[in-house]
Amino acid sequence: MNINSVVGLVLGITVVLVTAAMGGQGLRGFLDLHAFLIVIGGCTSAVILAVDLHDLLRVPRILRMLFGGPPDYKGIVERLTKFSEIARRDGLLALEAAVNELEDETFRKGLQMAIDGTSSEDINKFFEAHMAVAEKDNEHGKRIIECYEKWAPSFGLLGTLQGLILMLQNLSDPDTIAPSMGVAMVATFYGAFVAFMLGGPLANKMQRSYDNEHHKHQIIKDGITAIQHGENPRILEERLSIYL
Amino acid sequence: MNINSVVGLVLGITVVLVTAAMGGQGLRGFLDLHAFLIVIGGCTSAVILAVDLHDLLRVPRILRMLFGGPPDYKGIVERLTKFSEIARRDGLLALEAAVNELEDETFRKGLQMAIDGTSSEDINKFFEAHMAVAEKDNEHGKRIIECYEKWAPSFGLLGTLQGLILMLQNLSDPDTIAPSMGVAMVATFYGAFVAFMLGGPLANKMQRSYDNEHHKHQIIKDGITAIQHGENPRILEERLSIYL
Amino acid sequence: MNINSVVGLVLGITVVLVTAAMGGQGLRGFLDLHAFLIVIGGCTSAVILAVDLHDLLRVPRILRMLFGGPPDYKGIVERLTKFSEIARRDGLLALEAAVNELEDETFRKGLQMAIDGTSSEDINKFFEAHMAVAEKDNEHGKRIIECYEKWAPSFGLLGTLQGLILMLQNLSDPDTIAPSMGVAMVATFYGAFVAFMLGGPLANKMQRSYDNEHHKHQIIKDGITAIQHGENPRILEERLSIYL
Amino acid sequence: MNINSVVGLVLGITVVLVTAAMGGQGLRGFLDLHAFLIVIGGCTSAVILAVDLHDLLRVPRILRMLFGGPPDYKGIVERLTKFSEIARRDGLLALEAAVNELEDETFRKGLQMAIDGTSSEDINKFFEAHMAVAEKDNEHGKRIIECYEKWAPSFGLLGTLQGLILMLQNLSDPDTIAPSMGVAMVATFYGAFVAFMLGGPLANKMQRSYDNEHHKHQIIKDGITAIQHGENPRILEERLSIYL
Amino acid sequence: MNINSVVGLVLGITVVLVTAAMGGQGLRGFLDLHAFLIVIGGCTSAVILAVDLHDLLRVPRILRMLFGGPPDYKGIVERLTKFSEIARRDGLLALEAAVNELEDETFRKGLQMAIDGTSSEDINKFFEAHMAVAEKDNEHGKRIIECYEKWAPSFGLLGTLQGLILMLQNLSDPDTIAPSMGVAMVATFYGAFVAFMLGGPLANKMQRSYDNEHHKHQIIKDGITAIQHGENPRILEERLSIYL
Repeated sequence: MNINSVVGLVLGITVVLVTAAMGGQGLRGFLDLHAFLIVIGGCTSAVILAVDLHDLLRVPRILRMLFGGPPDYKGIVERLTKFSEIARRDGLLALEAAVNELEDETFRKGLQMAIDGTSSEDINKFFEAHMAVAEKDNEHGKRIIECYEKWAPSFGLLGTLQGLILMLQNLSDPDTIAPSMGVAMVATFYGAFVAFMLGGPLANKMQRSYDNEHHKHQIIKDGITAIQHGENPRILEERLSIYL
Repeated sequence: MNINSVVGLVLGITVVLVTAAMGGQGLRGFLDLHAFLIVIGGCTSAVILAVDLHDLLRVPRILRMLFGGPPDYKGIVERLTKFSEIARRDGLLALEAAVNELEDETFRKGLQMAIDGTSSEDINKFFEAHMAVAEKDNEHGKRIIECYEKWAPSFGLLGTLQGLILMLQNLSDPDTIAPSMGVAMVATFYGAFVAFMLGGPLANKMQRSYDNEHHKHQIIKDGITAIQHGENPRILEERLSIYL
Repeated sequence: MNINSVVGLVLGITVVLVTAAMGGQGLRGFLDLHAFLIVIGGCTSAVILAVDLHDLLRVPRILRMLFGGPPDYKGIVERLTKFSEIARRDGLLALEAAVNELEDETFRKGLQMAIDGTSSEDINKFFEAHMAVAEKDNEHGKRIIECYEKWAPSFGLLGTLQGLILMLQNLSDPDTIAPSMGVAMVATFYGAFVAFMLGGPLANKMQRSYDNEHHKHQIIKDGITAIQHGENPRILEERLSIYL
Repeated sequence: MNINSVVGLVLGITVVLVTAAMGGQGLRGFLDLHAFLIVIGGCTSAVILAVDLHDLLRVPRILRMLFGGPPDYKGIVERLTKFSEIARRDGLLALEAAVNELEDETFRKGLQMAIDGTSSEDINKFFEAHMAVAEKDNEHGKRIIECYEKWAPSFGLLGTLQGLILMLQNLSDPDTIAPSMGVAMVATFYGAFVAFMLGGPLANKMQRSYDNEHHKHQIIKDGITAIQHGENPRILEERLSIYL
Repeated sequence: MNINSVVGLVLGITVVLVTAAMGGQGLRGFLDLHAFLIVIGGCTSAVILAVDLHDLLRVPRILRMLFGGPPDYKGIVERLTKFSEIARRDGLLALEAAVNELEDETFRKGLQMAIDGTSSEDINKFFEAHMAVAEKDNEHGKRIIECYEKWAPSFGLLGTLQGLILMLQNLSDPDTIAPSMGVAMVATFYGAFVAFMLGGPLANKMQRSYDNEHHKHQIIKDGITAIQHGENPRILEERLSIYL
């Protein structure tokens, strides 16, 4: 669980609600169906148009990834050091038992390949293919969130323009100008909220999560190659500890 | 057929129309010939000036590509695996019959080259030349759509400025100020709609479609090279399945 | 002659003029010496400051290039195929007569080098040096146009600010506020027109023209190398036709 | 101590306060709890959401780095030259005593590796791993500051929108419009101050500090390699002096 | 002397002053101490915070470079051709006399190295180190100017916000609203002027000057290498003339 993601999100929404209520009139003035429809509905439509069905279906996985914590780098390095000791003492085949305990699929597959005697070059190719696919996936997933960051203010503007155009063209009672303008501006407010409190930070977080993932696979790849070459566990640990 | 492109486009337009009509005065206030002319006409003129005739003539193909679905990666991998089995069993020449069934032109040509005994290096060159040309084509096509995304708001601004300049310079009746401003703002509304509901998402989609195309050719290239080298069908399938 | 450049430019200016006149007061309201001076004069001064004299002197050549059509790729490929046939039949020296007919200087020089027996490597170097210089030239030329795209709206803003500052500080007659604001906004209008109807599209076009030029030299380079190696004209034609 | 960081920061805040007080009404008009909460609280929440806990914990180190001065390049080059002389005269082992005096950890570790007879290639790998990790760290740290630069104006806008929406929707006394607008604009003011007086310059400074760090390690790496190879101290000094 | 830099700068300032005075009230309305302090003082403080002392001390050199003309490429090529003839006829040592006449330090050092019999590879390294350092220097210098381009409008906005906030909160006499707004907008005007008439063009010019410098060193490097290899002066001249 990524504790600061939750704290940041809850705190941010609280700050926006509290400051909105500081005017002394509660939050009623900020609830507007029209603004909600154009910002959330319009922007989501644009996103649906902009991406592949395959990307949309991966949104739940993206959200889970955003709120999952960073990998346990230290545990991975310790495990790799232990595996290295076992391999040096009892041979690569002695790792067979340990393989099934591994949760990370890429780690498991990569280690299995080493045990099976796959060439070091082929294991590298396997990791690089995996990392290239993960990069593409991250890129497509991040683009969804970035679309909200980029387009939500625009749909807020569209909503405010709709309100202003109608208000200005049908001016019967001057007393309604100000309230109508106030309502029209709620769409801009929604757009800014979605873009800057949700879209921007989540897109950043997504890139950060991908960096973590990439970093983890880099460590695993380096470790498995070293185990295969029968490198000294002490040296392996020291070398990998630069990454921590 | 790319179902989510159609859903996103129809939904988005519906949302904008519904929210526009929520003011209770129908859509009349949003219909304006002046705004239409300056945004659509002006922006299209700028695009015509900005690109080559050759690019303009490819617009229908671009639109078809945007609403065509993603490639059937799985089918391609299955087919490549099957071809690999045939080639191992009966030799490359046995694929001659299968070649003509292939719809994808690059697939067909590439496989034919393998059957004809073209060197692996020359086949790679063929695919790379094709992919480089496709990248250029995609870039030029995407630029057309991006121009609408980038310039439509500017032409909306030009239209609104035209309206405001005339309105302010010729102020005979104060009662007409507000409606005139409302009309002038319709151009900004059109510009924002074209840029953010159409231009932005379609440019994104175009890049996505190109990524798919590139991905497909990568798989085919890898597969044909493997078939040529008589790689084991089981290993080929496993290796290609990383891409799925 | 690049027909769509001319069509786009004429159409765009027509659209802006027609929509401006749709207010029913002609174009008088859009003619303002002050706005013209600050946008055109200011922006041009900034450009003069920003670039080298050498770049400024190349502006006429840039404009000629923008309105010249794309290269005749097909004619070039046909010519290269013909040259290839002659060289295979009668030797490279038989091309001596054809060289002088070539209009393209780089084509002529490159072919002459091949006839003179210059090594394939040196011919490649010659083309690459030419293409690198052409890229730099294009970059410097495009930067001039991009400056207009980037700065014209800013000088429009400067002009409008000048108008507003004076108008607000010297408010004797309230009736003059609106017309003065209208006049002040003409500068913004000019800036937007120069940036979005001229600067943006022309900068795009320039990049496109450079892409064409680069593409052409790529084809010529490939063709001459193939002729030198005595490649089969049929294969050469097929290989070059991917570029079309 | 980075003297110009302190001067720039103090001077900048002074300028903003003095110009604010030039209106003759002191600074009271610029103190607003609502604006402070939404800009500082909202933006900090967004940052917490956007990054990893690990990055947040490194903020004190980042600030220390921003206000620490640039490395003493000259001293490093002199030290490397001296080490080079010792190594040529008395052998690499004679440097053992000098190693412990070195404050810079990477310098110390790298030199120790050279004394221990580690291969030149492995020392290079060690420095490159260190520099790659430092680059990642810098990137993640800079992103925190850049988030303030990028999002603070947006949260200022959110605050101003909150004020305007409430003010416009609840217009009982026309005399309160102007003061309410003035208060609402304080949020925009805060956002602009945080972004442009703090975020922007500090992000720039961070990149500059990283460039210095990178530069220093480059010099140390080059120097240690040269010492290992027994290069002439005179030539080493001259070569390194290009970097000064 | 870079004639068009001076012409552009003088012309640009003249255009802004003339258009400001076209309102018929002279330039008094545009002189404002408050706006000057916040834009020039605030932005300069931000720059001082953003860079290293070392970069600030190089500002005079940067300005000199901006107004110095482009290198005399033709003279350099002629000189290299002449040196090449001398070296072919009388040997490299015969260039000893010519070395001291060279004003360009890098040219002198590089040629001296060639005369001293330094290997071609080491001379290349020397030039590349010099060019890498020059690129870094250019980057840091340009960043100072770009900060003015980027932040000056923001400080103009800060100044205008200060004016508006005070004006709106302390509205005793409605007649003072407009003039106060006019004064507040002068800060925006200053910010725009600094950014778009000075910062933008000078940053562009700086990049251009660096490109020239880089180009010059490229020619000198190529020429010295050719002289060392005893290349034919005719061929050298022809090859270098592509760069002109």
